[in-house]
Amino acid sequence: MYKIVFLRHGHSTWNEENRFTGWTDVDLSQQGIEESLNSGQILKEQGFKFDIAFTSVLKRAIRTLWIVLDEMDLMWIPVFRSWKLNERHYGGLQGLYKSKTAREFGEDQVFIWRRSFDIPPPALERSDERSSTKDRKYSLLKEEEIPQSECLKTTIERVLPYWNNEIVPVIKSGKNVFIVAHGNSLRAIVKHIDNISDEKIPHLNIPTGFPLVYELDEELKPIKHYYLGDPDAIKKAEKAVANQGKSN
Amino acid sequence: MYKIVFLRHGHSTWNEENRFTGWTDVDLSQQGIEESLNSGQILKEQGFKFDIAFTSVLKRAIRTLWIVLDEMDLMWIPVFRSWKLNERHYGGLQGLYKSKTAREFGEDQVFIWRRSFDIPPPALERSDERSSTKDRKYSLLKEEEIPQSECLKTTIERVLPYWNNEIVPVIKSGKNVFIVAHGNSLRAIVKHIDNISDEKIPHLNIPTGFPLVYELDEELKPIKHYYLGDPDAIKKAEKAVANQGKSN
Repeated sequence: MYKIVFLRHGHSTWNEENRFTGWTDVDLSQQGIEESLNSGQILKEQGFKFDIAFTSVLKRAIRTLWIVLDEMDLMWIPVFRSWKLNERHYGGLQGLYKSKTAREFGEDQVFIWRRSFDIPPPALERSDERSSTKDRKYSLLKEEEIPQSECLKTTIERVLPYWNNEIVPVIKSGKNVFIVAHGNSLRAIVKHIDNISDEKIPHLNIPTGFPLVYELDEELKPIKHYYLGDPDAIKKAEKAVANQGKSN
Repeated sequence: MYKIVFLRHGHSTWNEENRFTGWTDVDLSQQGIEESLNSGQILKEQGFKFDIAFTSVLKRAIRTLWIVLDEMDLMWIPVFRSWKLNERHYGGLQGLYKSKTAREFGEDQVFIWRRSFDIPPPALERSDERSSTKDRKYSLLKEEEIPQSECLKTTIERVLPYWNNEIVPVIKSGKNVFIVAHGNSLRAIVKHIDNISDEKIPHLNIPTGFPLVYELDEELKPIKHYYLGDPDAIKKAEKAVANQGKSN
């Protein structure tokens, strides 16, 4: 039996401002730092001992990981960063305020952009200063590999090969794996493990700041999963994520 | 031409207490944190852009690296940690106070342990609680690979294969390489690059907290090297390292 732990990065400065973030490389907020410290303490108290960690190339995930590893006295374990674990690219919505966008386009349209499976937000132009085309982080990618907008479907299409080719072999080798990523890259993995339908997955809300444990059998089929932390706080956090698209 | 940057980790809590550290996994002191911040700012101001970093599995080096990467907005670059870049193992001296050790054994004996090329300090017993035998960091090593004491000669014997096999190919591929390590693992590399004699190398003092730039030709022969930072502060730091074995 395998036990792996997922963690959605803590609250960011743009969660605080309620803006669409996507690939924008914003940092954790003070609340996000505290959530990360709390996650690290819970994992340490419960005796988790990771051998290896995977994360994205976005600093809100990397800093969450760093804080947790520091708390657990695990700064020395190998860490692999990949853009394939990045948040969904939010296209032309990146940088916009969620409530303002809801007033302008209507809550229904925003809900479609946020929660439909296969309708991406409007794409960024490559010349748009918000585009990642000229970002050194992605300089090893072919230009056509760099998304200018993604829906959950296309996010899954780049997350799953990384999961299958890079992470699964490490899990099967018996190592204790820790993955710190984002709402939608984690949704992609959870959808795959739990075989969740295209219709249901957009409505699965993974809160920030609570470690999510998956116990898997020898064939990586799910046995059970559960969050670590105070159950009331977890429920409150799940609700907060679901309400972010509302206009007030 | 290649340009690589070495950095000896900042001042640690045991530098502060003037104790022999070796593989003991102590953290940076406040001064060490400030040195690291300063190194990061200098590197950023001078426009360095690293593609990849190498460090040890000891937290004083990893935290130095983290602080510098954070300052340079480079948290996303790949980082490789290896015990082969660890500080020299100080054997039975680990944990002892340098000045007290000098009074007990005499400054000459301490100088031999600190600065001879091939005389290691007394070895730790495997059962000694200071031994790394049961440390999870080294659990993938064979028991006979884990040193219980090292001289500079044996330190070089494990650093150089890592340099030649893991770091040199990356430099030759054209990537900008940053190496954050320790007094003796950096001495090992510098000795090799500059072809410094066994007699002279123990007296080369690399200060903490100042980035050391090496410019190398196509065959990795040295063109020149220099520290970044205030020249007077660098000289003062070099002297401070040389004086650590004195009894007062």
